[in-house]
Amino acid sequence: MVNILMDADTLPDPTDARAVRRTIHAFPELGFCEIRTANLAWRTLESLGWVLTGGTSLVDVDGYAGLPGESELETACAEARAQGVDHQSIDRFGGGATAFIAELSGNRPGPTVALRVDMDALPVAESRHPDHRPAAEGFASRNAGRMHACGHDGHVAIGLRVAAGLSADRDFPGRVRLILQPAEEGVRGAAPMVAAGVCDDVDTMLALHLGFGASLGSVAPATDLYATTKLRAEFIGKASHASNAPEEGRNALLAAASAILSLHGLPPFASTPTRVNVGTLLSEGAPNIIPARAILHAEVRAGIAAVHEELERRALAVLSGAAAMQGVEVRTSQTGRATTATNDRVVLAVIEEVSETVDLIVGAPQPLRASDDATLMMNRVQDLGGHAAYILIGSGDFGAHHSPTFDIDESALEHGAHLIEAVVRAGCPEGVA
Amino acid sequence: MVNILMDADTLPDPTDARAVRRTIHAFPELGFCEIRTANLAWRTLESLGWVLTGGTSLVDVDGYAGLPGESELETACAEARAQGVDHQSIDRFGGGATAFIAELSGNRPGPTVALRVDMDALPVAESRHPDHRPAAEGFASRNAGRMHACGHDGHVAIGLRVAAGLSADRDFPGRVRLILQPAEEGVRGAAPMVAAGVCDDVDTMLALHLGFGASLGSVAPATDLYATTKLRAEFIGKASHASNAPEEGRNALLAAASAILSLHGLPPFASTPTRVNVGTLLSEGAPNIIPARAILHAEVRAGIAAVHEELERRALAVLSGAAAMQGVEVRTSQTGRATTATNDRVVLAVIEEVSETVDLIVGAPQPLRASDDATLMMNRVQDLGGHAAYILIGSGDFGAHHSPTFDIDESALEHGAHLIEAVVRAGCPEGVA
Amino acid sequence: MVNILMDADTLPDPTDARAVRRTIHAFPELGFCEIRTANLAWRTLESLGWVLTGGTSLVDVDGYAGLPGESELETACAEARAQGVDHQSIDRFGGGATAFIAELSGNRPGPTVALRVDMDALPVAESRHPDHRPAAEGFASRNAGRMHACGHDGHVAIGLRVAAGLSADRDFPGRVRLILQPAEEGVRGAAPMVAAGVCDDVDTMLALHLGFGASLGSVAPATDLYATTKLRAEFIGKASHASNAPEEGRNALLAAASAILSLHGLPPFASTPTRVNVGTLLSEGAPNIIPARAILHAEVRAGIAAVHEELERRALAVLSGAAAMQGVEVRTSQTGRATTATNDRVVLAVIEEVSETVDLIVGAPQPLRASDDATLMMNRVQDLGGHAAYILIGSGDFGAHHSPTFDIDESALEHGAHLIEAVVRAGCPEGVA
Amino acid sequence: MVNILMDADTLPDPTDARAVRRTIHAFPELGFCEIRTANLAWRTLESLGWVLTGGTSLVDVDGYAGLPGESELETACAEARAQGVDHQSIDRFGGGATAFIAELSGNRPGPTVALRVDMDALPVAESRHPDHRPAAEGFASRNAGRMHACGHDGHVAIGLRVAAGLSADRDFPGRVRLILQPAEEGVRGAAPMVAAGVCDDVDTMLALHLGFGASLGSVAPATDLYATTKLRAEFIGKASHASNAPEEGRNALLAAASAILSLHGLPPFASTPTRVNVGTLLSEGAPNIIPARAILHAEVRAGIAAVHEELERRALAVLSGAAAMQGVEVRTSQTGRATTATNDRVVLAVIEEVSETVDLIVGAPQPLRASDDATLMMNRVQDLGGHAAYILIGSGDFGAHHSPTFDIDESALEHGAHLIEAVVRAGCPEGVA
Repeated sequence: MVNILMDADTLPDPTDARAVRRTIHAFPELGFCEIRTANLAWRTLESLGWVLTGGTSLVDVDGYAGLPGESELETACAEARAQGVDHQSIDRFGGGATAFIAELSGNRPGPTVALRVDMDALPVAESRHPDHRPAAEGFASRNAGRMHACGHDGHVAIGLRVAAGLSADRDFPGRVRLILQPAEEGVRGAAPMVAAGVCDDVDTMLALHLGFGASLGSVAPATDLYATTKLRAEFIGKASHASNAPEEGRNALLAAASAILSLHGLPPFASTPTRVNVGTLLSEGAPNIIPARAILHAEVRAGIAAVHEELERRALAVLSGAAAMQGVEVRTSQTGRATTATNDRVVLAVIEEVSETVDLIVGAPQPLRASDDATLMMNRVQDLGGHAAYILIGSGDFGAHHSPTFDIDESALEHGAHLIEAVVRAGCPEGVA
Repeated sequence: MVNILMDADTLPDPTDARAVRRTIHAFPELGFCEIRTANLAWRTLESLGWVLTGGTSLVDVDGYAGLPGESELETACAEARAQGVDHQSIDRFGGGATAFIAELSGNRPGPTVALRVDMDALPVAESRHPDHRPAAEGFASRNAGRMHACGHDGHVAIGLRVAAGLSADRDFPGRVRLILQPAEEGVRGAAPMVAAGVCDDVDTMLALHLGFGASLGSVAPATDLYATTKLRAEFIGKASHASNAPEEGRNALLAAASAILSLHGLPPFASTPTRVNVGTLLSEGAPNIIPARAILHAEVRAGIAAVHEELERRALAVLSGAAAMQGVEVRTSQTGRATTATNDRVVLAVIEEVSETVDLIVGAPQPLRASDDATLMMNRVQDLGGHAAYILIGSGDFGAHHSPTFDIDESALEHGAHLIEAVVRAGCPEGVA
Repeated sequence: MVNILMDADTLPDPTDARAVRRTIHAFPELGFCEIRTANLAWRTLESLGWVLTGGTSLVDVDGYAGLPGESELETACAEARAQGVDHQSIDRFGGGATAFIAELSGNRPGPTVALRVDMDALPVAESRHPDHRPAAEGFASRNAGRMHACGHDGHVAIGLRVAAGLSADRDFPGRVRLILQPAEEGVRGAAPMVAAGVCDDVDTMLALHLGFGASLGSVAPATDLYATTKLRAEFIGKASHASNAPEEGRNALLAAASAILSLHGLPPFASTPTRVNVGTLLSEGAPNIIPARAILHAEVRAGIAAVHEELERRALAVLSGAAAMQGVEVRTSQTGRATTATNDRVVLAVIEEVSETVDLIVGAPQPLRASDDATLMMNRVQDLGGHAAYILIGSGDFGAHHSPTFDIDESALEHGAHLIEAVVRAGCPEGVA
Repeated sequence: MVNILMDADTLPDPTDARAVRRTIHAFPELGFCEIRTANLAWRTLESLGWVLTGGTSLVDVDGYAGLPGESELETACAEARAQGVDHQSIDRFGGGATAFIAELSGNRPGPTVALRVDMDALPVAESRHPDHRPAAEGFASRNAGRMHACGHDGHVAIGLRVAAGLSADRDFPGRVRLILQPAEEGVRGAAPMVAAGVCDDVDTMLALHLGFGASLGSVAPATDLYATTKLRAEFIGKASHASNAPEEGRNALLAAASAILSLHGLPPFASTPTRVNVGTLLSEGAPNIIPARAILHAEVRAGIAAVHEELERRALAVLSGAAAMQGVEVRTSQTGRATTATNDRVVLAVIEEVSETVDLIVGAPQPLRASDDATLMMNRVQDLGGHAAYILIGSGDFGAHHSPTFDIDESALEHGAHLIEAVVRAGCPEGVA
């Protein structure tokens, strides 16, 4: 069913959001490695007449702590090539440069409306159980150990469906910008795009997410967007023969183990939910060598920005204290961040107004209890006098986000696309500038 | 200086132990992946007229817990090919089948004397400092992240030098068997060879090691060979979104962290030294996912076999208790083992007798305070009525074993080879059988 | 200022709530040891004509896990005697039997209204700083290491002030019951009273607390009453000489340390706040002995009863897993519990109605984010068809609850007493029975 | 059987070492609290004509970190009084001043020979099992939770038996000094005595210990006396309400728990055995309060002084790192110490010479694998040119030292006393001075 070649003839029809979602679902790519996905979107938007800016010329991720390692980036290029991406596109999107923007102007003046479209997948192995529709219908992940378990495949499909709709009839005010963002997972991809200015002239910033508690057939404003920091900590000790000279080593793994337990033991805060998680640990070597290096990736989150800052300070104290306990060094860096955000009433009003026209119910605000670096874009737009909203499109009651059985009811794709198109056509608020 | 091609013309001269050691040093290979090294030894011994048995036909490592993963074994084949090993040899030694034996008979009846020759290197990144001779003289490791930091390169050079010496003059009693063992690190390679019967008809079993406290120009019997088990433990929990549903996860990494701290906290035993080390930990995923899996490799050691057994029992209790704390599963397997061993006086007597003829001083017994699965070979030979000894050849005062600056005084290669050759020619004790 | 003798002549005047509060404040007593406090209340209520039932004849705390140890109970008796309590009263209230109830009937039929009055103090050392009014004005704690840092001194003063008011004019419907509860800290004292039936015929159950975010001059319904369990865990290992035979010990303290870290690392739940705390640890012995015993006291809490149950299950799994890691035994027992509770609208309506008459503002519902075993009484009454409410009386903006500088604005005592008296006089809802 | 009164008439006969041992065994006293024991020894030695110096006038323990708390010292006085010690003696020995020395001169010139006699017991609850002789024969500990589980009761009995023997016949050279030392457990009592000069004029210093692997009927030199430090660490955080404001606390107990695990995880040293133990932990408070304080007592030991120093440095790093992890303060102090020691051949020669005359076999050197602050006395004497030895007197094969069933074969008391008396009479080596 899923064609892996990517020549123009075989691009899925963008008005068939289900088909688009499925081809993307079958080839999930991790953050900053979304070469095939970006290429599919780029070529589709190109064919629809949108103006494109992106790849290496748009953002600078050089030396960015959130970027995968060089060999992983190279593997991504090799895989994309094997999956039918042409050489020129790999040059454009390789090395982490998968971010791009696409613009289309309507037939009359008006605001600039931006929609964030995130493209990346997760390091989760997809279920092969016949009850899991992608498995049953043959579009489950073909990329081992990776999965669209958060619905970003659907976000791209929605974005392209919106693009097809607007291209087909340019009777709308102002200008629409699709912001194709890499690496939402790990909240890494938005910051460089914001730094590149992609939000600076936006009047209304829209971000959407499938699922997260909104019921099918409804749209709901999201609340409880947590501020977060993703941290990388590298403990650097000293190797030695574990039997013959254990005392000459400095044990980086013991430092990491102490840190992990104490990070998870950071206290809750009465004023707002907080989260701490150490998600990965890598300490290579051999059983008979005192571990000289241990690298972990962690995150802290909070529903209030000031609490998040305090929590991050405490997490850093745990990391440095743990290193001191073992006489090892620790180097920490931020690999991603997002902040809290609030929805502007004026944007919600437009959404409420048009929702009926697209047969969607407006649900009660839904707590996301998670983070999204679209908040950086929202904050940037709001700081410059514009408006923003983060909405949830109900996508049915499937497996939990980030789990191997996550899925969506694909009718949500049309729901989301029709809503966004209607919002654009209705006219969004302009910024104060 | 080091030729990476391996056609017959370019094999190093086996009488030049220094050259042999350096070409092996430059291409260190991890346990069960010693394809280039085994091939170099095989072809050299073949050219010297030794009778060879090995590769896939000798030992069965299928399903062996100590074997590297399939992709690592495949990478080893690819690398060996790139480094000049021919197709036929890769077929022989690929997939973990690097073990082989080589035999030569003397010109008169006598005992079967076996010498264990271990071939593998360590996952240590070699120093590039100009004070480190391999770096200064251009034969430092060309295989990233691996290093002959324990002298096995020298062991192979000694073995081949002994072979060259004996081939040149077959005036010796009985038969000599070189046992080319993979994966001494992790004490993984001996057990399958012993199971294959390579020690069953041996009268005198010799194992040697460079360094470990013997002074240059001396040979010393080794004591304090620790019994050891290498353990792999895999904690299997359940992933979930770390912010939005943390309670649905079961945290495998927290279980591992608790286990690591408590394993290192196992008590010392008054009767004998013990060692516990967790040398590696791998928990992949993402900062925003509760870790569903964590894999560690550990070892326990003791100077007394019964204490070692008790210590292993306690380590397993720590692992299962830690899993229970987090509601996760743990699967443990043994990936290697060695035991204690004692030197037979009759073998030491021969060594003492001939040492003067090769200008070596006999030093006091040296505590190894480490493990070697040559002990499994020694025990097997002793159990069947034969004799055994483990000796240390002084190799100068360089960086510690397993450290990035480990090196040897290469004159030790001649010392070791001349001693072994002299022992063989002098006639070793026969077994009782 | 504070008279420590307790003969009838020297009891404080119950209409002077400030004086009552101060004499209680000066002699804080821990849970189940409130002998002096209970005696003061008993004798005051007796003098006001209330019908009293209590001490050893009311509740059975024998073998109750939440009871202090025998020596602590004996010390409490000795201290009470030294502080002027007569022999007969010590017989009544000693051994943990400080609970009692007091009843007064009005001059016409009506509902039974109960007010919970908790009496115990905390193991906190009170501030001696001159900015702390109890220190400045001479009524700071005279009982070392104990303090009324949660306002229960004020609760007793309010209860007695209500009693004095109602005794002076019996023009009210039905019957009022004061429930003098020991050991609210640790949520230990309510369960045995509920079991003794003190709530079984109550139509309207009232609980109040000073402070907790209500502003001075206001009364506010409390929300976010967390379900909680207090746990005692005793790890029982085996002592041995730490140097000469460390391997013969089984280390109870290491088990406890692992448990503590993992208890604090239990995950948050997305649906409701949770809390885990290990508040005490005792492991006696000597530096040169492997610790054979470690006793900890912990608590788990959650805003939803089902989450609380799951959290408690996980806490118990941590405790038993930690014991298994060290080969020690663990015995756990529940020393206290409380549950969630909701306020009945019909009760709040009465409070709102009368508040104006006593010059109190009705504030917005205030999250308590804590636990109180008055919830067991509330649930019991509601289960039997009655009604309940938990209200907060604003007491000014002093140091945090449970801190050494906690204090109240004493005008809150009159506020609380007048409100309760007005509610009783207004007539509370009857139960369905 | 055991008379608890201590008037002159009821002192046990010092020539009946068994009786002396039993009365001491029945009333075990912890370090610096040995009032009854010291008094018994003092009065006995006084009656035998020895010259006594001691109590408050001999050593200064004021402000000494190893001293028990004031209330514990006061309790010790009260208990001693209740057990028949007169007022004057309590004045002499109270407040930690239980150390004293006793001297007797022979009838001709000669060296000063000192014997260390330690008096304190352990915080171990003695077995009441009928197989345990002290229980079966009625002299088990009457002091709850304390026990002579290390044989110091026997040491005092030996010392007094030696005194009786020498007093009865003063035909010996030189002068004998008994050094009655408190608080050997915790290695606290020797340092202040050494500082007071009690070893400065000693020619031959003797220390003995019952048991520790010497077989009954033998005397053996002790080896493997470990250097040690006893550490007290107090973590000081900040209390807060664990539910309502957990983030305002700074958790001292979590810091202690992390430290405990990492202290036990300090690496072994290849060159010599090491030991680390955290023997006690106290963190008081309540389940609903974030623990503001946690106090632990730990020890580190090593068979080589330099290793011990390094190990102590690492232990301190663990403690301060753990505190930093939680944002709490830690204060550490040394409460005791001992060092390594070696036996002088000239002293052993005398022992070997006389042993036959007292029917004792001289056993092979026995590793103590423990610490004793008699080593501070030995080192002091050796530093000033004198000689020293530490010997073990076989006392049968009973429960392990420091266990609830430890016991001795009481014939060992005569063995030890006769040996020491014979050594004194034979004439010990003089120092160089």
